[in-house]
Amino acid sequence: MLMSKKVDVGVPEQFNWSMSDHSKIYEFGQKTDGNATMRSLLGGKGANLAEMARIGLPVPPGFTITTEVCAEFKANGEKLPAYVFDQVKVAIKNVEAQQGKKFGDLENPLLFSVRSGARDSMPGMMDTILNLGLNDQSVQGFAKHTNNPRFAYDCYRRFIQMYGDVVMGVQATDDRDEEPFDAVLGQLKQEVNIQNDVDLTAEQLQELIRRYKDLIKKSVGAEFPQDVYAQLEGAIGAVFRSWNNERAVIYRQKYNIPSEWGTAVNVQSMVFGNMGDNCATGVAFTRNPANGMHEFYGEYLINAQGEDVVAGIRTPRPISALKNDMPKVFEQLISVCKTLEDHFCDMQDLEFTIEQDKLYMLQTRNGKRTGLAAVRIAVEMVDEGRISKEEAVRRIPADSISSLLVPVFDEAEKKNLKKLAIGLPAGPGAACGKVYFSAKKAEEIHAQGEKVVLCRIETSPEDIRGMLTSEGILTSRGGVSSHAALVARQMGKVCVCGAGTLHIDYVSKTIQVSETIIKEGDYISIDGTTGEVFSGKVATVPSEVNRVLAGNMKAENSDTYRLFAMVMDWADGFRKLGIRTNADTPKQAAQAFQLGAEGIGLCRTEHMFFEEDRIDFVRKMILATTMEDRIKALDHLKPLQRGDFEGLFRAMKGQPVTIRLLDPPLHEFLPNTDDALDALSKKFNIPMEHIGARVQALHEQNPMLGHRGCRLGMTYPEITTMQALAIFEAVAQAVSEGIDVKVEVMVPLVGFEGELKSQVERIRSAADEVMNRTGKKFNYAVGTMLELPRAALVADKIAETAEFFSFGTNDLTQTTLGMSRDDSGTFLPEYISQEVVKRNPFASIDVEGVGQLMGIGVTKARRVRPGVKIGICGEHGGDPDSIKFCHSLGLDYVSCAPNRIPVAKIAAAQAALEERS
Amino acid sequence: MLMSKKVDVGVPEQFNWSMSDHSKIYEFGQKTDGNATMRSLLGGKGANLAEMARIGLPVPPGFTITTEVCAEFKANGEKLPAYVFDQVKVAIKNVEAQQGKKFGDLENPLLFSVRSGARDSMPGMMDTILNLGLNDQSVQGFAKHTNNPRFAYDCYRRFIQMYGDVVMGVQATDDRDEEPFDAVLGQLKQEVNIQNDVDLTAEQLQELIRRYKDLIKKSVGAEFPQDVYAQLEGAIGAVFRSWNNERAVIYRQKYNIPSEWGTAVNVQSMVFGNMGDNCATGVAFTRNPANGMHEFYGEYLINAQGEDVVAGIRTPRPISALKNDMPKVFEQLISVCKTLEDHFCDMQDLEFTIEQDKLYMLQTRNGKRTGLAAVRIAVEMVDEGRISKEEAVRRIPADSISSLLVPVFDEAEKKNLKKLAIGLPAGPGAACGKVYFSAKKAEEIHAQGEKVVLCRIETSPEDIRGMLTSEGILTSRGGVSSHAALVARQMGKVCVCGAGTLHIDYVSKTIQVSETIIKEGDYISIDGTTGEVFSGKVATVPSEVNRVLAGNMKAENSDTYRLFAMVMDWADGFRKLGIRTNADTPKQAAQAFQLGAEGIGLCRTEHMFFEEDRIDFVRKMILATTMEDRIKALDHLKPLQRGDFEGLFRAMKGQPVTIRLLDPPLHEFLPNTDDALDALSKKFNIPMEHIGARVQALHEQNPMLGHRGCRLGMTYPEITTMQALAIFEAVAQAVSEGIDVKVEVMVPLVGFEGELKSQVERIRSAADEVMNRTGKKFNYAVGTMLELPRAALVADKIAETAEFFSFGTNDLTQTTLGMSRDDSGTFLPEYISQEVVKRNPFASIDVEGVGQLMGIGVTKARRVRPGVKIGICGEHGGDPDSIKFCHSLGLDYVSCAPNRIPVAKIAAAQAALEERS
Repeated sequence: MLMSKKVDVGVPEQFNWSMSDHSKIYEFGQKTDGNATMRSLLGGKGANLAEMARIGLPVPPGFTITTEVCAEFKANGEKLPAYVFDQVKVAIKNVEAQQGKKFGDLENPLLFSVRSGARDSMPGMMDTILNLGLNDQSVQGFAKHTNNPRFAYDCYRRFIQMYGDVVMGVQATDDRDEEPFDAVLGQLKQEVNIQNDVDLTAEQLQELIRRYKDLIKKSVGAEFPQDVYAQLEGAIGAVFRSWNNERAVIYRQKYNIPSEWGTAVNVQSMVFGNMGDNCATGVAFTRNPANGMHEFYGEYLINAQGEDVVAGIRTPRPISALKNDMPKVFEQLISVCKTLEDHFCDMQDLEFTIEQDKLYMLQTRNGKRTGLAAVRIAVEMVDEGRISKEEAVRRIPADSISSLLVPVFDEAEKKNLKKLAIGLPAGPGAACGKVYFSAKKAEEIHAQGEKVVLCRIETSPEDIRGMLTSEGILTSRGGVSSHAALVARQMGKVCVCGAGTLHIDYVSKTIQVSETIIKEGDYISIDGTTGEVFSGKVATVPSEVNRVLAGNMKAENSDTYRLFAMVMDWADGFRKLGIRTNADTPKQAAQAFQLGAEGIGLCRTEHMFFEEDRIDFVRKMILATTMEDRIKALDHLKPLQRGDFEGLFRAMKGQPVTIRLLDPPLHEFLPNTDDALDALSKKFNIPMEHIGARVQALHEQNPMLGHRGCRLGMTYPEITTMQALAIFEAVAQAVSEGIDVKVEVMVPLVGFEGELKSQVERIRSAADEVMNRTGKKFNYAVGTMLELPRAALVADKIAETAEFFSFGTNDLTQTTLGMSRDDSGTFLPEYISQEVVKRNPFASIDVEGVGQLMGIGVTKARRVRPGVKIGICGEHGGDPDSIKFCHSLGLDYVSCAPNRIPVAKIAAAQAALEERS
Repeated sequence: MLMSKKVDVGVPEQFNWSMSDHSKIYEFGQKTDGNATMRSLLGGKGANLAEMARIGLPVPPGFTITTEVCAEFKANGEKLPAYVFDQVKVAIKNVEAQQGKKFGDLENPLLFSVRSGARDSMPGMMDTILNLGLNDQSVQGFAKHTNNPRFAYDCYRRFIQMYGDVVMGVQATDDRDEEPFDAVLGQLKQEVNIQNDVDLTAEQLQELIRRYKDLIKKSVGAEFPQDVYAQLEGAIGAVFRSWNNERAVIYRQKYNIPSEWGTAVNVQSMVFGNMGDNCATGVAFTRNPANGMHEFYGEYLINAQGEDVVAGIRTPRPISALKNDMPKVFEQLISVCKTLEDHFCDMQDLEFTIEQDKLYMLQTRNGKRTGLAAVRIAVEMVDEGRISKEEAVRRIPADSISSLLVPVFDEAEKKNLKKLAIGLPAGPGAACGKVYFSAKKAEEIHAQGEKVVLCRIETSPEDIRGMLTSEGILTSRGGVSSHAALVARQMGKVCVCGAGTLHIDYVSKTIQVSETIIKEGDYISIDGTTGEVFSGKVATVPSEVNRVLAGNMKAENSDTYRLFAMVMDWADGFRKLGIRTNADTPKQAAQAFQLGAEGIGLCRTEHMFFEEDRIDFVRKMILATTMEDRIKALDHLKPLQRGDFEGLFRAMKGQPVTIRLLDPPLHEFLPNTDDALDALSKKFNIPMEHIGARVQALHEQNPMLGHRGCRLGMTYPEITTMQALAIFEAVAQAVSEGIDVKVEVMVPLVGFEGELKSQVERIRSAADEVMNRTGKKFNYAVGTMLELPRAALVADKIAETAEFFSFGTNDLTQTTLGMSRDDSGTFLPEYISQEVVKRNPFASIDVEGVGQLMGIGVTKARRVRPGVKIGICGEHGGDPDSIKFCHSLGLDYVSCAPNRIPVAKIAAAQAALEERS
């Protein structure tokens, strides 16, 4: 094995286009054109097949049709351009020469697999054809040449089935959901009374082939093609087409993969895991992808082809068993794994086939992993000296760290509940919900606001939407590389798979375990960390990390905490962005402080208004008809608000605290039913007519664009004064307690510089009054939100008064796009599925539009007030891509929900590291 | 008289600062520091006093304190800076030397008037003090020296009254609205049984003076000041302060005068029109300001001071009577008028005083005039060779031209109604409404949506708000220079003044004319063109201009039309902007075409949806649950829409027609009461539950930001298809009729380029289908609105698809400012009054914010598609300032309501002319 040269992987910018940039075909085998850096052009699978061939690993020869052709194919009316097919034919000749067999030969035919392979792996999303190159005549030669008719006909029937499904588009003919070829197979097995596919005889397989071809004829009105080049052209086209099938599109949306990237197509000589008991096929991970432990992990099937393992039809054997079954090959596989991990410097997910005791490598890639695994592998690879801390932080998907903070089941309570089964712990975490047995139903029930656990015998790519909307996934069949496990790893879903003792019945919609029966809609709880399945609801407790942070668990007792703290520490060392939190109560503030918040970026004072002891005064203030009455109500509110602020200052121990003045329209504080209004009328002894008139007067056509934010402070300046006094009185109190308070008073919804000037004047006189009254001196800053397009456009003018800024990207998105978040449900999903909008702009900043305005705002504000502090406190502050964008804009900090702080730290560190390189 | 040099007036940029830019005082008289170009520094009054002095007209000497001091005064705690007052004292010495009298002298005191004077005249808005410099002692010397004790005490009591009111702030002590000094005067007159002020004896005036001083003492607790310099300092301060009084602020808002400009203060030696019957005071216009006729026009009072004329207390004599009263002075006045009009090259509004047969000029300025007068004077001055056509167009306030298009009373119907009186025709036009007798009540009733005619014996500046909200103003007292006439001229209000036969009684709230009694709330009609007053409602007919355009009157019979057509012709020659119209029906389109519209810039297709024959199908379309049902309803709508479009194409005779696709949210088409929904349920035989559910589903939190515009077309593409087919079928029909149709299909509310791409695809296939089906070939363009901030920000991307753009500034303003027009009523008026917002952004483009975005949009769009056609079709398209801004942005056209087309043409021409100079 060639290991002389380390390839710089994972840096897709370094293409080596010069080599053969006119060819659309890159060969691998004796002659290898590509390498691992060429993911954009060859897709991940193609690039790594080339790389494995280059370093001398046993890769069956073949070639890759580049991703460029994907777009050409579409533009060419979904037909492969002729010049590309000419190049394909040349490449076929080269493979024939290496293999000493001919494609389409009637005696000893060369067979191919045809597989997709995008830049980022999208496992199971696109189509694959195996055993391509057989026809009615050559299968006889193949049977004779291999001296294994059962094997030959098995290959042919597999080929017809896949081709009929994927290329020819055979559909189910009746209402049953069953895949039509499976139905034919099932029927035959019943007729001949056979349980397992492998037990079918050559003759029975020949009968099956006849029935398959009939099915195709009946279903699509065409014959199964006998010309091998026609087969090949059809298969290549089908793979390119599958780039735009529904599940691939959904997957791309979820992972923000641009549709322009396209897929490559890999055409590779077949090797056979299904020639007999000295054959096998399997998948393996160089480390455990569920928890990251450094152990060889995987599974295989004797006498099978690749799709049998993934499809979960037969339960595979754990990879450790291969040591007994085929000790020599196992040794070799271990050695290949080491080579690959050394070479790619990351945990590898690989596919292999053993043909008559000979090992072939069919794929390797950086393995998908759960959040916990990502953190553990990164930390341990640093310990092993394989990667730097920078690289470790780069590799942890920022979002995945939050899985270390999700609640887990209460161990004590677990003991009181009925444990139904133990399966494979495929996606860590605790999930509890009502059980449903179809993805469609799960989606439906979820849309009604219910929590769902999707329970399937096995899952398939068609289930993807339902899986995404479920709290957790439970299967009774399939192992670590089954579809369910794979989705759980990628999407951070709680998952238990292969819980074989559960008898799942789709017809009666029940799970049966010995005498226990769980019906559709019953509660079930699954622990994806241990693999346990419980009937009923299990209460959750905070995660280990949170327990340690809260002082309820010793740090040395939690390995998870050790990993978490290590990674946070590294991230803190790299990042430049400050991380603050959005917190409205002292409790939230304290939690955020434990998680490392460097201040409060947004305290929404109105959230305190709803608490029971004050909502009455808020309502009295709103219903007041005279300024005197309004001030009386405000006087009651002030000490309560002051108390809240004191709590925040104590919790934050001298970190800056940004307090936003009242923002929402006043009608939000009034009840909205006639009964509740009536009760209010009686309680306050205010005539119903008056209340009705006030409700009427407060009603707005478009409250989002109405009388709110500083517009309230401008028209009811006494509210601003009350809030400012409460803030500064709290500051004075905190100062007297020895806290070095850094308070920032934030005026919301400013669009005109005059608004801010007027509000600031009021705030400053409140501060002066409190300083005079209490004799305490303190510093404070007054600034504003940038949450209206106009504010960003005139940020220079506003900066003459504002001492700091904070982007309110929720409102800024709504106004810039003219799109109400509450009302966008009727069209935004359609936009996302049509790719008119790349990502939900309320989840991740619309860089092109909203981001452009933010850039204008930053530039203008700093032109007038160089270095002015600018942050972001919209919900985008917790979204990794948005955080990276904020870094690129030169913001000072992001502010996010307490539980997003670790995510924000990683994302901020990654942004700083990206900038370095 | 010096007339050797023509001064370039009206170009305020050409300041002559070098002369004495350290002094805050500019003298006029024997030595004159300023001139007419220095309006910014000296105010209009001060600059023109200087100019009149420079050209040798008889101006009583004095000096101007510059507008700069106005801000210094405010910043200095509303106190005149000491160094300025030192300069004032020096200037006083210079005036003393010229007049041979001393300020504060006890024998022969020099008296001053102290008046405001802003850059643009704001008549009656700020304060004035006359006869300043008298005190208890010097009034005796003054009486002796003038040998006219009655005159001397009259001057003193006037001075005390004005000073007490304006400087010392004496307020009414009881609930009556009566001005307190007037009350004292009235009481005394009653005691001594005298009707007219002029009949009070010297002794009675001395008693009045005592009572006035008592009133001051009681009301403000201070003595009336006896020190003349203290008097002067107080008066100057009061004038500066009056820059920010309520009525001045309202006036500035209406006329967009920045508060930073400030007022100057003019201190001028008094001359006396009230020394006896060889004295007089008056105002005159070199042409008739109501209709523009070239005639000497004005009025005067014998033995009176200036405020008597304006206040309307005595009814003045027409200026022509002066020829008999004082023939020599009249000759001289005619000559001065000619000099002034020649010198300033515009109609002059002048104030004069005759003191013992000697003429003094106290003011001249370009006279305010009605729209009709503006047009006539401009045209006639061109005829007279005084000004160029360019200058003529520059001088016509664009808005004022619309007064030539307002409906007038139907002459036939007038004859059937009771004519109550004839007054002075002070503001042309027809007004009809319910009569109310106080400004406050008029405002109240107007707020309830009623049309009001405000009827007052005379009006005063306090009435300004009520006057602005009334349809017309009627007074029984006061002439052409009365407050009512002046406001009518400035604000384009219909006004009849001095209808002396009307007996107006505020207490009984009635108008009595012989036996007829009109009560509060009764309808009244006033014709401001003829001066007629009618009881009841008179029907209106289109204006002469509109009748000529519609072919219902011969052009040669209408002088107004001749003037209108002339000015339009000139404007068309100068302007670069195209002028289109917003028209939704063939009728509107035809009207706009007559007025010279060069195309339709916006046809809102949904306006057609509400018509009786189609609203049912629209509702069926909305209530449809299947696409089939929806398409069925759309099939019914299509021929109706097609018919509308055919009508538009015929009306526009080959001018471009921009048709916007469906824009408003669907719920706007459903009834909004339960009863109406119930009726719909019965009519359509659709269960009420279904209708209720659909209404529920269509309900939105913020419909402005919801499911509307192209978002409808994206989710219900069949609507786009129906509308596109209707448009193109209409085009095919029009083409077959020989019309060279230029249709532009406009997609609304685009924010993402993908939206436009998707809609354009649909529109183009509809066009192809119609061309194939009908065999007619036609051209068309597809473009989009720019009405969301994002659209402007990514106009480059959108320009890849859009063939034209139109700014929808209504929505763009709402989104950029985050301000719903419908909901802004609770805070926007407050913002405008606090000058946080300079102008209502929904009336005139917010140049700084919205305008900045428009600039970004234009630049980006034209970067990708050079020279792409860009227009504006928001309501701002009819606002002169916005039109000028659009010109400066390089837009191709503005589109406005049909009746705003002439305004738009003038504004566009003015923009082009401004650019030239």
